[in-house]
Amino acid sequence: MIAVLKQGTTQAQKEHLLNWLKHMNLDVHVSEGQEVTVLGLIGDTSRVDIDLLNSLEIVQSVKRVSEPYKQANRKFQPNDSIINAAGVLIGGGNFAMIAGPCSVESEEQIVSVALAVKEAGANILRGGAFKPRTSPYAFQGLKDEGIRLLLEAKKVSGLPIITEIMTTRSLDLFEDVDIIQVGARNMQNFDLLQELGKTKKPILLKRGLANTLQELLMSAEYIMSEGNENIILCERGIRTYETYTRNTLDLSAVPVLHELTHLPVVVDPSHATGKASLVPSMAAAAAACGADGIMIEVHNNPACALCDGAQSITPVQFAQVNKTVQKIREASL
Amino acid sequence: MIAVLKQGTTQAQKEHLLNWLKHMNLDVHVSEGQEVTVLGLIGDTSRVDIDLLNSLEIVQSVKRVSEPYKQANRKFQPNDSIINAAGVLIGGGNFAMIAGPCSVESEEQIVSVALAVKEAGANILRGGAFKPRTSPYAFQGLKDEGIRLLLEAKKVSGLPIITEIMTTRSLDLFEDVDIIQVGARNMQNFDLLQELGKTKKPILLKRGLANTLQELLMSAEYIMSEGNENIILCERGIRTYETYTRNTLDLSAVPVLHELTHLPVVVDPSHATGKASLVPSMAAAAAACGADGIMIEVHNNPACALCDGAQSITPVQFAQVNKTVQKIREASL
Amino acid sequence: MIAVLKQGTTQAQKEHLLNWLKHMNLDVHVSEGQEVTVLGLIGDTSRVDIDLLNSLEIVQSVKRVSEPYKQANRKFQPNDSIINAAGVLIGGGNFAMIAGPCSVESEEQIVSVALAVKEAGANILRGGAFKPRTSPYAFQGLKDEGIRLLLEAKKVSGLPIITEIMTTRSLDLFEDVDIIQVGARNMQNFDLLQELGKTKKPILLKRGLANTLQELLMSAEYIMSEGNENIILCERGIRTYETYTRNTLDLSAVPVLHELTHLPVVVDPSHATGKASLVPSMAAAAAACGADGIMIEVHNNPACALCDGAQSITPVQFAQVNKTVQKIREASL
Amino acid sequence: MIAVLKQGTTQAQKEHLLNWLKHMNLDVHVSEGQEVTVLGLIGDTSRVDIDLLNSLEIVQSVKRVSEPYKQANRKFQPNDSIINAAGVLIGGGNFAMIAGPCSVESEEQIVSVALAVKEAGANILRGGAFKPRTSPYAFQGLKDEGIRLLLEAKKVSGLPIITEIMTTRSLDLFEDVDIIQVGARNMQNFDLLQELGKTKKPILLKRGLANTLQELLMSAEYIMSEGNENIILCERGIRTYETYTRNTLDLSAVPVLHELTHLPVVVDPSHATGKASLVPSMAAAAAACGADGIMIEVHNNPACALCDGAQSITPVQFAQVNKTVQKIREASL
Repeated sequence: MIAVLKQGTTQAQKEHLLNWLKHMNLDVHVSEGQEVTVLGLIGDTSRVDIDLLNSLEIVQSVKRVSEPYKQANRKFQPNDSIINAAGVLIGGGNFAMIAGPCSVESEEQIVSVALAVKEAGANILRGGAFKPRTSPYAFQGLKDEGIRLLLEAKKVSGLPIITEIMTTRSLDLFEDVDIIQVGARNMQNFDLLQELGKTKKPILLKRGLANTLQELLMSAEYIMSEGNENIILCERGIRTYETYTRNTLDLSAVPVLHELTHLPVVVDPSHATGKASLVPSMAAAAAACGADGIMIEVHNNPACALCDGAQSITPVQFAQVNKTVQKIREASL
Repeated sequence: MIAVLKQGTTQAQKEHLLNWLKHMNLDVHVSEGQEVTVLGLIGDTSRVDIDLLNSLEIVQSVKRVSEPYKQANRKFQPNDSIINAAGVLIGGGNFAMIAGPCSVESEEQIVSVALAVKEAGANILRGGAFKPRTSPYAFQGLKDEGIRLLLEAKKVSGLPIITEIMTTRSLDLFEDVDIIQVGARNMQNFDLLQELGKTKKPILLKRGLANTLQELLMSAEYIMSEGNENIILCERGIRTYETYTRNTLDLSAVPVLHELTHLPVVVDPSHATGKASLVPSMAAAAAACGADGIMIEVHNNPACALCDGAQSITPVQFAQVNKTVQKIREASL
Repeated sequence: MIAVLKQGTTQAQKEHLLNWLKHMNLDVHVSEGQEVTVLGLIGDTSRVDIDLLNSLEIVQSVKRVSEPYKQANRKFQPNDSIINAAGVLIGGGNFAMIAGPCSVESEEQIVSVALAVKEAGANILRGGAFKPRTSPYAFQGLKDEGIRLLLEAKKVSGLPIITEIMTTRSLDLFEDVDIIQVGARNMQNFDLLQELGKTKKPILLKRGLANTLQELLMSAEYIMSEGNENIILCERGIRTYETYTRNTLDLSAVPVLHELTHLPVVVDPSHATGKASLVPSMAAAAAACGADGIMIEVHNNPACALCDGAQSITPVQFAQVNKTVQKIREASL
Repeated sequence: MIAVLKQGTTQAQKEHLLNWLKHMNLDVHVSEGQEVTVLGLIGDTSRVDIDLLNSLEIVQSVKRVSEPYKQANRKFQPNDSIINAAGVLIGGGNFAMIAGPCSVESEEQIVSVALAVKEAGANILRGGAFKPRTSPYAFQGLKDEGIRLLLEAKKVSGLPIITEIMTTRSLDLFEDVDIIQVGARNMQNFDLLQELGKTKKPILLKRGLANTLQELLMSAEYIMSEGNENIILCERGIRTYETYTRNTLDLSAVPVLHELTHLPVVVDPSHATGKASLVPSMAAAAAACGADGIMIEVHNNPACALCDGAQSITPVQFAQVNKTVQKIREASL
């Protein structure tokens, strides 16, 4: 870590700061320039509060030169992590094709979608039981009944299931769920992360709407520091000024995360774009830049007035997406 | 709510959609234009999932014309809400001057700061017991012991206290806390909001790093819909591309929120700017544009090497800020 | 265009507004709701100043339902535009592989890069003669001499050339340039756009750092409205809070623009990411989501100390990128 | 400037880089750590292309420790600059109250507004002659006739005038204009900046929609490096994800710029918020945090259907704003 001190810092101020840093078991190299003084902090800087240091009046700026995450860091584990979700592998060349409806609505619905997406090439079933909704008046999901129906669909289809958790209080219900999803809004719900770290479950951790990739890795580190290394990262769009799409899918996150971490990276084009018509292109792009999986909303309800146009694509369209994705993966080798 | 349908929508598709909307107990006015068809949705549209509607292939765009929040809406309660925190009033002309250290560190520290900020003009004491930290390796606060010390400081100083909650699991510890703070990262932790809605405690709800003002009001609505109307909103900076300040303080949020809601609005310039040198100016600006209170980090530890330069200003500087703020409030009348 | 009037608007205010709108030759359909009044504006709304309308005190919000661009709009020209740059076609299935150095430095450099990238699969040569630099003290390019050298390289290699213009005052120098580039910082330099509209030159128009896709299309419309329809759009990253990459490449812009306009869309992964290591992945992703071309910085100077690590990739790496891109294009068909 | 080299950089690569840096007349201090090597670059680093350096494969990151602007830097000129616009002083305790209509429409209009705002407390008249418009089909201003009318209004009212320039080609028309405004979209139109640097005119330079404060200062430096030191900076809102206001007014820019530069800073709440109802609060806040002036749209046309509700406030409201602003300035002393 490097700290630049402002012009005009007194000798006494410098010594105060140096003493404080040494109390934190850091070695400090001081280099005095004409305009500024530069401190090089050596040792375990992951405990240093960079915001606090930055806020000191004598400090002009602070910069980390080594990453504050350790267990998630590729430097300390060069080989790709491979996550095992009930027999389906993700990462290290193994591709997750996750598909299913936005919300679980009924047994008939989830079972029929499960069979349809399996047929179309999916190897993991998704479906929302607990739904995070901006409005308290909106439908919040079937909750425990939703999880029961997902387990039904798993039994019939043989597909492992993934569904979102919203609070530590419902952790018991996730006993038989194969991958627990942490949504974008909970990416920095540290209490939830720590509790999930005490399980051995695969966790799919979605990037928050306005979180940096480093913050995403620090949230993974929260889970890993409690003992659970089964983490899949998920890029699902970030919030920008552009309003044509719901969010802006940041696909460069895929190769960047592959440089920084050994954890697998999955892309969710459905939530990022908010438009079914954009999902096939962005799924193809995700595969081309090396994603370890794709998560797509697929709906299958011929009786429903909405089915033709939903954000969710149909199983038939999904089969086509899957075919293109597989061809692109081969072309990218 | 208005939905614009794309050119080329078939009659059958339109009728499907109209039927679905009518099942949701909405009246629909259809107006056919040359290029597009515009639907006016009338009735209780707060239950309509705007993202879902927007994602339909036949829908070009959707727009709310009435706000999805009700209890927080000034239209339905024109008079300013006044929140009572252990006798200190906030809103409707009553100003909260909240001050205290970032973290509670020791009894000596918190008691001495409490007395100092009271002397300097504060009417509420802040202090962190549970600290949300990006890194799992950073100091996470004194936790329950921190709350005990805050209560000590309250007893000595007579100031009501505010401190942050991070999980429903520690709710019991907040029994005697006067205002419970929900931090930016938990603004959409809906489970936490609902539990807080079941208490009668004043809640200070901070705007999330990348949340719109409407989303802030929807989160307030989550709490209110469970029966707790004692909510104070807090603007604390949003995440933008500018890196000179930690976040970008959005002061226009103050008059905007005053138009949209009857709830009081407090501003936190310390976290927004991340620099002590900017706090006095931004506190003055917050008072000038009508904020109902200001929350400032104040530190007071002459033995500490960091005290001269911390993000926290000193009680002496705080007294000066308080004087200016009071003069500006008079000038703005 | 739809305008929503606030609750409490008086009859006199409404009539004032209706008269004004009718003076602009618009028909207005009025629909009175319980809470709000909705006006449907019919006619040529492209002349309406949406900001002005939005700012009226009686207006709650305004929304366009038809796009304000006409000549760039796919609705009015359903077939893909194909741009001809000195015999090389772009769009409608024709792919531009644009490569070359950031800046033209010498005849030897630009000629050798031209030959190398041609060999490696490029069909257009790029190179900066006028360089937009944040600092007035930085090297601003070889200017007219740079253009002369590019023309030399064109003669030797046979590749059409593209280079950036910064002011109408240097337009004469671009007489023999095959594609004129308008940089991100000049996307809304309307005077420059209008002058370029009076030429017949192909224009590559880069998206501004914080411009929406609609604004990009309006800038294309500025050029087209003066008579020049030879426009290539270019996505080159937008500014967000994420700092790991220089900008955030918004690849969903590719399929979105293909929905909205008939103009071809090229992607520049070099400037967007600012890191050579990310260019191959993002070039592959751009091809997979349907881009009509890719623009990549390629450098070739074995004597230069910087050559190993520059943002620019080498001709050898470029040949590999080109091979992958072509395979992905086939796989995506 | 500090450059951090990646782990694994070879000795040969380091030496290449060091040679290159020395050719740029920089001294380099090398400090070898366990994980990384840190280079301290000493000398005139304002010529170093930070993007290029950052893009090298062996470079992990680069950080400036001294500002790249010189003439605009408060370090080299500690006293506030005072700009003289036809006798009206701005900066160093002198406050600019700039008011007038969005566009000049007619002699009657601009003269009557000029007299009204003077009466209400303005000391400078604004009015648009050349209007930057997103759409080529929208009204582009009265152009040279608009400037003629502004000069008429100046003669009658005695107020100095400010109006926006859009291209170097109309520079002659600005001969008698007292302050030339560079709009947000042209903040990095470097050719225009350099030409304005060759005049002696006061320039009001608006911050671009997505530009950092450092980039704003670099654009000021472009003008100053050509010899013109008469620059007024203007904060007018930045583009964020929040859509309730047109842009997000970044008031912390005021104290930050006062720390970094000696140039005066003016705030434009009208364009930032896009809503007349928010202008008085944000004008008050700007005064409270130390702005050297405020620029407000004021309209005065009783015959116009729009006058009651325009983004522009009326002279009567402006007089009230002016009174509050003056009281707040006194309170803030």
